[in-house]
Amino acid sequence: MNNFVYNIPTKVYFGENQLENLGAELSKYGKKVLLTYGGGSIKKIGLYDKVVAEISKAGLELFELSGIDPNPRVSSVNAGADICKKEDIDVLLAVGGGSVLDCTKYIGAATYYDGDAWDILLKKAPVEKCLPIITVLTLAATGSEMDAGGVISNPETKDKIGLIFPVMQPKVSFLDPTVTYTVNKFHTACGAADMISHIIEVYFNMNQDLYMLDYVMEGLMKTIIKFAPIAMEKPDDYEARANLMWTSTWAINGFVNGGKRQAWSCHPMEHELSAIYDITHGLGLAILTPRWMEYTLNENTVSKFYQFGVNVFGLDGTLPQMEVAKKSIEMLKDFLFGTLGLSSTLTEIGIDDTNFEIMAKKSVTGGTMYAFQPLAASDIEEIFRMCL
Amino acid sequence: MNNFVYNIPTKVYFGENQLENLGAELSKYGKKVLLTYGGGSIKKIGLYDKVVAEISKAGLELFELSGIDPNPRVSSVNAGADICKKEDIDVLLAVGGGSVLDCTKYIGAATYYDGDAWDILLKKAPVEKCLPIITVLTLAATGSEMDAGGVISNPETKDKIGLIFPVMQPKVSFLDPTVTYTVNKFHTACGAADMISHIIEVYFNMNQDLYMLDYVMEGLMKTIIKFAPIAMEKPDDYEARANLMWTSTWAINGFVNGGKRQAWSCHPMEHELSAIYDITHGLGLAILTPRWMEYTLNENTVSKFYQFGVNVFGLDGTLPQMEVAKKSIEMLKDFLFGTLGLSSTLTEIGIDDTNFEIMAKKSVTGGTMYAFQPLAASDIEEIFRMCL
Repeated sequence: MNNFVYNIPTKVYFGENQLENLGAELSKYGKKVLLTYGGGSIKKIGLYDKVVAEISKAGLELFELSGIDPNPRVSSVNAGADICKKEDIDVLLAVGGGSVLDCTKYIGAATYYDGDAWDILLKKAPVEKCLPIITVLTLAATGSEMDAGGVISNPETKDKIGLIFPVMQPKVSFLDPTVTYTVNKFHTACGAADMISHIIEVYFNMNQDLYMLDYVMEGLMKTIIKFAPIAMEKPDDYEARANLMWTSTWAINGFVNGGKRQAWSCHPMEHELSAIYDITHGLGLAILTPRWMEYTLNENTVSKFYQFGVNVFGLDGTLPQMEVAKKSIEMLKDFLFGTLGLSSTLTEIGIDDTNFEIMAKKSVTGGTMYAFQPLAASDIEEIFRMCL
Repeated sequence: MNNFVYNIPTKVYFGENQLENLGAELSKYGKKVLLTYGGGSIKKIGLYDKVVAEISKAGLELFELSGIDPNPRVSSVNAGADICKKEDIDVLLAVGGGSVLDCTKYIGAATYYDGDAWDILLKKAPVEKCLPIITVLTLAATGSEMDAGGVISNPETKDKIGLIFPVMQPKVSFLDPTVTYTVNKFHTACGAADMISHIIEVYFNMNQDLYMLDYVMEGLMKTIIKFAPIAMEKPDDYEARANLMWTSTWAINGFVNGGKRQAWSCHPMEHELSAIYDITHGLGLAILTPRWMEYTLNENTVSKFYQFGVNVFGLDGTLPQMEVAKKSIEMLKDFLFGTLGLSSTLTEIGIDDTNFEIMAKKSVTGGTMYAFQPLAASDIEEIFRMCL
C-alpha cells in the first residue's frame, strides 16, 4: 500500500442563494477581479447579472474575458494572462463548466510566465505560482471546481493536454444545483458519462489499496446511475441535480485515489478524439469506456469486473466471475447508450478510422505504466476500432 | 434540502515514515512547539523519540505537556494554556488519540482567553482564535485529527461537554497505520464502535438530503465491519489498520453531513455515562446504540432501518420492512457484542440505575430538536434501563 498526502483545501458553498457570500470571498484576495466565462449562456440564465451585482456590491473592480470555448484553447489562456498582467488582476472568478474553469486555472498560472502559455502544457515552463481562483459552477461533470488539474487544446498542433499543478486549486467554489436546471438532456448525459468515467479510471485498478475507497466509489457510481435519468426526465429536480453535482466533484477531487498508483486509460484516448474532432468529452468517454473494458477483461482482471458488477449493478455474486464480469459491461452499455441515450459508436458521430494510428500513438505518450492493463499503441488502435 | 458550506482544509500525511515532513510543517508556524501527549505510551512505542528527533532536526524549541487523560480534563487544558501564554508558544503538536487531540484544541483556544478554560465549554467565553495545531494520531476512533470539535470533562461538576469551533481545525495531521499496531483488542473494538456510532448518528435521519452521502456512509460502515475483526485478530495487518484509520477520519470530519439537520442522540447519552463512570467512550456507545435503535424503531422510522439492513448487512430486501429493520439491529448487536467482543450491558461493567434520572435530564440539554426521533428525558431514562 502506498503513502499519500491528502490536501484538498477548496471551500465549497453548496446550495441556492449562496452567491451572497461571493463578494466577501473575492475581497479576501484584493480589489481587481477578472471574470471569465464562455459563450454567454450565463447571461441567458441570469447568472451573469447576479455575479456582477455581487461584485459591484462588494465595491470590487470588474474585468472580463468571455468566449472561452468547450475544449478550451491556449489562445484564451494567453488572452486572459495578458489582461491579468496589464491590469494587475488580484483574483480570478471563473463562471461556467469545466472548460471555463480549466482555462482560468492556466490563466492564473500563465500570469506569472513571460511567454506562450502552451510552454506550460509542454512542461517547458515551471508553475510555482497562480492567481487565486474562485469558481461558480454551471455544469456537473469535470470536477474542476475542486481539483488542481485542467485540460487545454491547441488547434494548431491538434494537441489536447491535461496537467495538474497544486497552486491552481480553486480557493472557493460555489455549487448551486439550480444553475444546472437549464442543462439539456444531452449535456446532462455527457456530464454523467464523464463523472462515471473519472471513477472507473481509478476504480479499475489491481492495487487493492484502501478498500474503503472502493466502497465510496461504488456509492458514487450508484448515485450517478440513480439520479442522471431523473435529471434528464425532470431537469428541475433539485435532489437529482444536487446529487449529481456533489458526486461529480468527489469523483475526481483526489479523495478516492488514496495511494493507488494509476494511469488513466480512457481519458488520454478521448483527449485525442476531441482534439481532432472537437466532440463533447463525455460523449467520447461513453463510447470508449465499455470497449476499453471489453479489451482489458481477462483472467487477471476479472475479479475487479466481478466486484463492479455485484456492488454497482447488484448482479448475482453466486454466478461465475467471468459471467458477472461480462454482464457488468453490458449493464454499463445499457446505462450509457440506453438510459442516457448517448451515441454508441464513433461511426454514428461521423468519425472513421482515418486518424486512429496517430491518435493511438499519442495516447500512449500519456503514460500507461501503472494502468489497469498496460496498453501499447496497437492495443489502443484496436480499442478505437472496436468503437466503430 | 439544506444548503451547507464544506470547509475541511486539514492536510493529511497518510502512511509510514511520513514524519520526515513534520519539521517542515511545524516550521511554517514558528519556532516554539508545545508537544502534548498522554500517559507515556508514545514513549513505549518509540514514537516520542521519533517526534522529538524531527523537532530537533528542524531546529525548533520544544516544550512539553504530558499526562493528558482519556476523557481529558479541563485542568489539562488550563495547564497547557498556561505554558502557551508563559512561553509564547507558536504551534501545538498533539501526539496521541482523540483525548490528547481534543484537549490540545482547547489549549490552543484557551491561550487567547484570560480565565478558566471551562468558561469556553460553558460558552461564556468566545473562541475566535486558536494556536495552529498539528497532530500525530495514535488511535483510529474519534476523528479529531480532521475536525474542529473536542470533548472535555470536568470531574468536579461531573460534566462532559463537546463543542465545535472552526478555528480549532488541525492544520496538518499525520496518520500512520503502523502506529496503531500496538492498540489492544479492546481499544481496537472500542474505536470501531465509536466510528460506527459517528456514522449512525448522521445516517439515521429522516431527512434524505444528498443520497450520495448515504451510500458513502454505508461504505464506511461496511469497511468497519470488514476490517475491525481483522485488526483484532492480526494487530499488524497494515491493510486493516489503514482502512480503519482513514474511515474513522471520514466518519466524522463533516463530509458525510452535507446539509442534513441533525442532533446526535447516543453521543450525548454516552457523555453522561463516561462523565460519571469514566468508562471508555466507544464501549458506552456500543452498549447504548442498539437500545436506542430498538427504542426509536417504529412505523415512521422503519424505512431507514430497512435501508441500513439491506445496504450495510446485505439483508434480503424482499422481506417485510419491519422484519428487515429488526434483523438489522440484531446484526449490529452480533457485530458489537459478538465479533468485537464488547460488553453488552451496563450491568456487566458495574453500572446500575442510580444516576439514570439525572443523566437523562442532562442528555436532553444536549439538544434533540432535529433528532431522528426526538427524545424527552423519560425516553432517555428508558433507553438507559434497556441497557441494564
